[in-house]
Amino acid sequence: MITTDILIIGAGPTGLFAVFEAGLLKLKCHLIDALPQPGGQCSEIYPKKPIYDIPAYPEILAGDLTDKLLEQCKQFEPGFTLGERAETIEKQDDGSFIVTTNKGTQHKAPVVAIAGGLGSFEPRKPLLENIVDFENKGVEYIIKDPEIYRNKKVVIAGGGDSALDWSIFLADVASSVTLVHRRNEFRGHLDSVEKAQELKNAGKIKLITPAEITAINGNGMVESVEVTKKDENPIILETDHFIPLFGLSPKLGPIANWGLEIEKNAIKVNNALDYQTNIPGIFAIGDVNTYPGKLKLILCGFHEATLMCQAAYQIINPGKRYVLKYTTVSGIDGFDGTRKEAPKAVVKKIE
Amino acid sequence: MITTDILIIGAGPTGLFAVFEAGLLKLKCHLIDALPQPGGQCSEIYPKKPIYDIPAYPEILAGDLTDKLLEQCKQFEPGFTLGERAETIEKQDDGSFIVTTNKGTQHKAPVVAIAGGLGSFEPRKPLLENIVDFENKGVEYIIKDPEIYRNKKVVIAGGGDSALDWSIFLADVASSVTLVHRRNEFRGHLDSVEKAQELKNAGKIKLITPAEITAINGNGMVESVEVTKKDENPIILETDHFIPLFGLSPKLGPIANWGLEIEKNAIKVNNALDYQTNIPGIFAIGDVNTYPGKLKLILCGFHEATLMCQAAYQIINPGKRYVLKYTTVSGIDGFDGTRKEAPKAVVKKIE
Ligand SMILES: Cc1cc2nc3c(=O)[nH]c(=O)nc-3n(C[C@H](O)[C@H](O)[C@H](O)COP(=O)(O)OP(=O)(O)OC[C@H]3O[C@@H](n4cnc5c(N)ncnc54)[C@H](O)[C@@H]3O)c2cc1C
Ligand SMILES: Cc1cc2nc3c(=O)[nH]c(=O)nc-3n(C[C@H](O)[C@H](O)[C@H](O)COP(=O)(O)OP(=O)(O)OC[C@H]3O[C@@H](n4cnc5c(N)ncnc54)[C@H](O)[C@@H]3O)c2cc1C
Repeated sequence: MITTDILIIGAGPTGLFAVFEAGLLKLKCHLIDALPQPGGQCSEIYPKKPIYDIPAYPEILAGDLTDKLLEQCKQFEPGFTLGERAETIEKQDDGSFIVTTNKGTQHKAPVVAIAGGLGSFEPRKPLLENIVDFENKGVEYIIKDPEIYRNKKVVIAGGGDSALDWSIFLADVASSVTLVHRRNEFRGHLDSVEKAQELKNAGKIKLITPAEITAINGNGMVESVEVTKKDENPIILETDHFIPLFGLSPKLGPIANWGLEIEKNAIKVNNALDYQTNIPGIFAIGDVNTYPGKLKLILCGFHEATLMCQAAYQIINPGKRYVLKYTTVSGIDGFDGTRKEAPKAVVKKIE
Repeated sequence: MITTDILIIGAGPTGLFAVFEAGLLKLKCHLIDALPQPGGQCSEIYPKKPIYDIPAYPEILAGDLTDKLLEQCKQFEPGFTLGERAETIEKQDDGSFIVTTNKGTQHKAPVVAIAGGLGSFEPRKPLLENIVDFENKGVEYIIKDPEIYRNKKVVIAGGGDSALDWSIFLADVASSVTLVHRRNEFRGHLDSVEKAQELKNAGKIKLITPAEITAINGNGMVESVEVTKKDENPIILETDHFIPLFGLSPKLGPIANWGLEIEKNAIKVNNALDYQTNIPGIFAIGDVNTYPGKLKLILCGFHEATLMCQAAYQIINPGKRYVLKYTTVSGIDGFDGTRKEAPKAVVKKIE
């Protein structure tokens, strides 16, 4: 059982900044995310695109924003349960909550902050009858550890940035990479498309278009897939892995059944105070919440996370008075023993 | 008469970011500040100190934060009335407001956003009976344009960073610089103290400590000051300027009399909606406002400014529906004709 002060569901920008603000109040955080990496929408949907409305960043790539947020909260040593979806929540007699994931990992905390964005990111799957039988047995929708493909035969399906970028990356890792797409045209960053063209010309990746995977075969593990080109007969392609990269789409999912007040697919919170939900001790911050005038913007999540932490502090330290300290004045003491502080002014005679 | 969409009182971080958010909604802003430069507390009190809790900036100097915010809003061409204090407000029959400064400059706008922080920064003055007679006649508490001291004799009083830094800067501009401080010890950044020591050794600035200015003499303009060293007889020092730099302290000042609900020296706002005050059309954002759970933090001002702009949009464009657009997706069209946008994905055949 993982225990922590604030259990954060969702490691997007809001959840990551909450770790930092909680750290300032000496509260520890643990994050659960269905994705294999932190960053939420920023890292899953548009890591290489610029955002223009992060305060004091005239321009920052979404991926760089994630990196900066990770760097900022690192000293407060957040724990991570990645690649797992928070599935159930149970209130304990001592007032704390136990949250269990789809893989059975249990987490216990007195405060739960849902920073789940538009929901848990779930892969869009190809419509192949027996695909579920091969999940994690050669079929992967998300690449967590590219090393498992070393010297293996890989078939990737898809026509967007993920399919292009992973084909390019795995060209150097796998023994063979075949990219299958139902159109001739790919949609992605210009340099990704050009790089894929180069690798194709050099014989380092194989392209089959316009085509679709029409069957998966294997005895326990994936052994081959059937590829059907438009107006042609299917061919059988031997492969160790089949990786359909059709994008991930967010689903509020199990959280919708936690007894929280839901409105427009989002969780209603008390925005006049602390972004707490109708269940005391459970907060909702960032894109996942709603209130009159709500804007689904990253900068709003930062503010909501900050106010949530103050309320969490009160729950965890009942009756204790908290006096706000400026980071500039008090510096920051990391849980890892580091200290950051402004250079002190000297008091010195000039003679 | 200066006219604009949103008249912002206070050019601190909150006011500056409001310009950017308003610009996204195609609303123009004009800012009034009592200080000669934008940045509020960040530029006046601690420009060289690091802040650690600006989201996604593990560390940023307060002065650099101001620069970044100015850069971010530049394309929306804010107007500035600097070095003047907003003094009175009058509601017009057409629902708009006229705000007049202590120097008589008039501004008209349908929406007023007070981003006044802890208040208008006012200089701490030395207790010299006739000092008011010499204000702007050789006595300045804030240095707006260093060029007016070129080849002039200057006496500076004070023992902190401002006194040190301006003495250092003016050593190259004025014909003579004398720094007077009531103690032997100065309090400031180590490099400032060391630089002042160097200039003193080189005879480029003159130091008189521990001493105080005990009188100002002149006929209309400052002609000399009386300096009294501890346990010594006063001496007379000829000078063109006397610049007491004892720091600025913020005072809510005239705004306290505008009929707004005030609590704990701050303006009460509706934080459950749009940070509007009890007077429709007047908003209060950033350090200057108060509501249950308020935190006087820069990042909170950013969020408040953003929600305020949405409400301002409704006042200025009644009945028009606003659909939030992501900057990443829609790009940014500056009022100066510039356009920023994310590189578009290509749709391209790989052959
Ligand atoms: C193309 C695009 C452009 C955008 N441009 C801008 C912009 O310019 N400016 C701006 O401010 N915003 C922009 N946004 C919106 C911005 O990305 C979101 O506001 C932001 O990501 C919200 O952050 P968050 O942390 O609240 O949620 P998210 O980033 O959505 O992260 C939530 C995380 O929670 C996880 N999660 C949810 N439920 C569960 C569960 N049950 N178990 C485990 N994990 C779960 C999800 O997998 C996800 O990783 C843009 C969005 C898109 C898609
Ligand atoms: C030493 C120090 C360290 C700090 N450290 C941090 C930190 O680490 N993190 C953090 O988030 N915050 C910190 N703060 C607080 C932070 O600086 C403020 O929250 C922030 O400056 C508030 O911004 P603002 O724009 O609301 O107001 P301000 O920065 O106060 O700006 C308000 C401006 O309005 C002007 N004004 C007011 N009334 C009038 C009027 N009638 N006419 C004309 N002009 C007027 C003032 O002159 C001023 O320039 C610190 C503050 C100090 C002093």
